[in-house]
Amino acid sequence: MIDLLGIGNAIVDVVSRADDAFLSRHDMHKGGMMLIDSAAASALYDAMPPGIESSGGSAANTCAVAAAMGARVAYIGKVADDQLGGVFQHDMRATGVSFSTAPLTGGAPTARCLILVTPDGQRTMNTFLGACVTLDESDIDPAVVAQAAVTYMEGYLFDPPAAQAAFYKAAKLAHAAGRKVALSLSDAFCVNRHRAAFRDLVNGHVDILFANETEITALYETNTWDEAAAAVRQDVGLAALTRSEAGSTIVTPTETIQIAAAPARVVDTTGAGDAYAAGFLAGLTAGKSLAQCGQLGSLAAAEIIGHYGARPEADLSRMIASLG
Amino acid sequence: MIDLLGIGNAIVDVVSRADDAFLSRHDMHKGGMMLIDSAAASALYDAMPPGIESSGGSAANTCAVAAAMGARVAYIGKVADDQLGGVFQHDMRATGVSFSTAPLTGGAPTARCLILVTPDGQRTMNTFLGACVTLDESDIDPAVVAQAAVTYMEGYLFDPPAAQAAFYKAAKLAHAAGRKVALSLSDAFCVNRHRAAFRDLVNGHVDILFANETEITALYETNTWDEAAAAVRQDVGLAALTRSEAGSTIVTPTETIQIAAAPARVVDTTGAGDAYAAGFLAGLTAGKSLAQCGQLGSLAAAEIIGHYGARPEADLSRMIASLG
Repeated sequence: MIDLLGIGNAIVDVVSRADDAFLSRHDMHKGGMMLIDSAAASALYDAMPPGIESSGGSAANTCAVAAAMGARVAYIGKVADDQLGGVFQHDMRATGVSFSTAPLTGGAPTARCLILVTPDGQRTMNTFLGACVTLDESDIDPAVVAQAAVTYMEGYLFDPPAAQAAFYKAAKLAHAAGRKVALSLSDAFCVNRHRAAFRDLVNGHVDILFANETEITALYETNTWDEAAAAVRQDVGLAALTRSEAGSTIVTPTETIQIAAAPARVVDTTGAGDAYAAGFLAGLTAGKSLAQCGQLGSLAAAEIIGHYGARPEADLSRMIASLG
Repeated sequence: MIDLLGIGNAIVDVVSRADDAFLSRHDMHKGGMMLIDSAAASALYDAMPPGIESSGGSAANTCAVAAAMGARVAYIGKVADDQLGGVFQHDMRATGVSFSTAPLTGGAPTARCLILVTPDGQRTMNTFLGACVTLDESDIDPAVVAQAAVTYMEGYLFDPPAAQAAFYKAAKLAHAAGRKVALSLSDAFCVNRHRAAFRDLVNGHVDILFANETEITALYETNTWDEAAAAVRQDVGLAALTRSEAGSTIVTPTETIQIAAAPARVVDTTGAGDAYAAGFLAGLTAGKSLAQCGQLGSLAAAEIIGHYGARPEADLSRMIASLG
């Protein structure tokens, strides 16, 4: 039995501190994620300050945090057979996540995300997808999907072309086994790139949706939060909508639950949404109430934004039990 | 003109948090550095918790901190032509350090140091030297040595066999150009491995010596700090002896200057001694008094031990000017 199966882009993060002028010089949208090719990644890396490397990837971060909270977790994602791929594999397995997707050999290198953290703690991401573009249906192990209470996929997964088919295959297998499918919208620019696909998914293939305010309004092409919340209620059985320091709102067809943000010192917001989803889903699969799931999401996010990097530094193993 | 030329083992650090029981299970001496081969490195990495990768190497850390303080810095060290080697090169150059040693191709991979940080902030290091074992005399560029006010070498450099010759070549070239040679003793176990060579160096080839209490007593095979300080005064013109939270003592043939430690929250002591040497030498080459050099060493060390990793996170560019 698995509580959570995450499927996503397997990425190593390179985190540097930079000022707003650096972002302007390199035409970056603060807080967003931009896809870059190998040449652009080399050029940007050359221009970046010294960095710190750590395993990243949105769904992978969610898996690592959920595992650290005690959930039984598996992950599917594509690294290359290289040093950074080895780092990614090690970090997943060392967190207790089951990860056995075959690495790519003889092709593109392991994906990396060049992240600039500005003094306000905001992160701006530039992703070279590398080996991730080869993730496809053949990487989805039906036996693993069938035994996962929740199969969770990141919206970013729609950027590498073959992964959409992998997503649909996993969703179909999960539902056939009576399991739940969860999706994170990942990023407003990503929503704009794949709006039609996301609308189709949300309206029929997804049971649990995670999104922040800009993502959910982008999905429904509305300017107001209230309209977006009303729309999502028609589409999915359960949505957790995050609003940074304003906390989060859990929406079901019949309920609206407000959750406060947990107090946090903001150092680096990288992975905040990933950690929220981890806390929420670890709580859900442990049988907690929706309000408690939201609180666990807030607590996990608060830990992650208090330090550089998207993987936990504190011991999270007693977080669920601490709620009583 | 160069203020500081560092020569050392070019290493990427992999930092994980672990408890004392982990160190015991793996027969590690807390606070020390152990050399391990490729197989042992793989086995230990498999057993380690998730990690964070950052460029390391003792003299390289010193170079990065000194450059961040505004010194003109060059570095000589051997990485391989692989992903981690690229990370190391990037981080040196991005700090403003001139680094053009040819990487090793087709041989061992870039060196890595598996570092366990215990809850008390102590770091315990396990180094796989990889490509570093191929650093030799041919990597010493006479033109670079001749224009460096101080050529600084780490004691760890004596572990890869060919590097001793490189050390002597660099020392000879530096002195022929009227420059200074500095040495860090690095680690008490390293001193024990190479005591005869270090005694020969200190007594005739080195102008400035850095050591902590256990290293300097190991060098002179004495149990008391006072005996060690008296002995070093006979051997070198200038020694900076560090004593953790008790501060440091600067010893010349005619002077003994006590320097207080700067206040610091201890998160991870990795690189504390490297940063002290950086502050000291950046001050010295900027014409500061010995007492001010010691203060700069303390301030730089305090910054480094306040966070994970051995490279600076704060802006150090005004540290020297702040002393007035």
